[in-house]
Amino acid sequence: MNGILYGVGVGPGDPELMTLKAVHLIRETEIIAVPGTEPKETVAYQIAVQAVPQLAEKTLLPVPMPMTHDREEMRRNHKKGAALLESYLKQGKNIVFLTLGDPCVYSTYTYLQKIVVSDGYQTALVSGITSFCAAAARLNLPLSEWNEPLHILPAAHHPDASLQAPGNYVLMKAGRKMSQVKEILKSSGRDVYMVENCGMENEHVYHGAEEIPDNAGYYSLIIAKEQGQKSF
Amino acid sequence: MNGILYGVGVGPGDPELMTLKAVHLIRETEIIAVPGTEPKETVAYQIAVQAVPQLAEKTLLPVPMPMTHDREEMRRNHKKGAALLESYLKQGKNIVFLTLGDPCVYSTYTYLQKIVVSDGYQTALVSGITSFCAAAARLNLPLSEWNEPLHILPAAHHPDASLQAPGNYVLMKAGRKMSQVKEILKSSGRDVYMVENCGMENEHVYHGAEEIPDNAGYYSLIIAKEQGQKSF
Repeated sequence: MNGILYGVGVGPGDPELMTLKAVHLIRETEIIAVPGTEPKETVAYQIAVQAVPQLAEKTLLPVPMPMTHDREEMRRNHKKGAALLESYLKQGKNIVFLTLGDPCVYSTYTYLQKIVVSDGYQTALVSGITSFCAAAARLNLPLSEWNEPLHILPAAHHPDASLQAPGNYVLMKAGRKMSQVKEILKSSGRDVYMVENCGMENEHVYHGAEEIPDNAGYYSLIIAKEQGQKSF
Repeated sequence: MNGILYGVGVGPGDPELMTLKAVHLIRETEIIAVPGTEPKETVAYQIAVQAVPQLAEKTLLPVPMPMTHDREEMRRNHKKGAALLESYLKQGKNIVFLTLGDPCVYSTYTYLQKIVVSDGYQTALVSGITSFCAAAARLNLPLSEWNEPLHILPAAHHPDASLQAPGNYVLMKAGRKMSQVKEILKSSGRDVYMVENCGMENEHVYHGAEEIPDNAGYYSLIIAKEQGQKSF
């Protein structure tokens, strides 16, 4: 019988935000895959090993997923990663694939799972705390109340979004488009907050679009709320 | 010194989806508040006690938050609830307030925290797994990929939403407006999934708007994806 591939969210950074289910599954599974070339240097590993020290003694599979805008290269990487995972699954071994945040929300793991599923293997997902929930908690701020819609945008892909729909916005992964995104935020008339590296050692909180540096890190999360709402 | 009020997410139903932080905080805190009249009958308590059996021996504060559309009555209930919490905070006691899902996403706890903060007390939030992440994991389905926006709507307040913006939709708490919401879903041309009571004993999964019963329960979560996307 083939093994099962589990996509397991480890949350956004603080190991205490891992779920019991993630901890138990990592503990019970011998093969752990991580997105990256050097397993022990990946963020996902470094989060998980703090909650599950036994992780250091497991078989760690590196699955390189370099960021690239070359779609063909991306596909090649996904196929190679999936082939590596399948080489263990067909030996009947279960695999836990560690993903940052939640595996259903903008996770590169999604691409691997699609291939593995279409090749006939069984897969499952274990939810993790999303970066936007953690950032809101850090700010002690509700993301959405009562009748407010909540819009989550991968901002680097939507640098010209107007943010004019009713409700609140979460902008993820603004990264290299940060200066453009800041302009949108300024003209949106919204209350703006940003948390960089939420729950990690180098965490930083910003209030107002003006405060946000153009070179903010990859793990930066922006919350843009309708004005007139009281933050706590 | 006054105590601190912690809004702690217990996730959507499966106690294994509680975070280590929630478990530790519940274990270490003597006063636990729950939304409802009979603490041990509330959903939040019943989730948490499975992960932290010691909860049964704690001081349980019932904070009634009946669903009502009478804003004045709602405000009175919030004020009463906040006053109860403050009576312990001013004795220097910390309180953990259990919330379903995540305390930043459509949580009635938000209203209590606002009052308690404006009365000068310290508060903090601990993230929980949201119902929409758990439902997507249950369906083995990504909520959002690559450049797709994700829109989260409290559906009972937006029964005439068109669902025409690019990206995917999560509809929460459609409840009493379910028959109207089903009509929108049908005319949206989207792939529709619903999970009722996700992670609980009476969980039920539906595919397609037609399958959804008009009298689906309060804990029903709908995912409406752009067509042409492959679910796993």
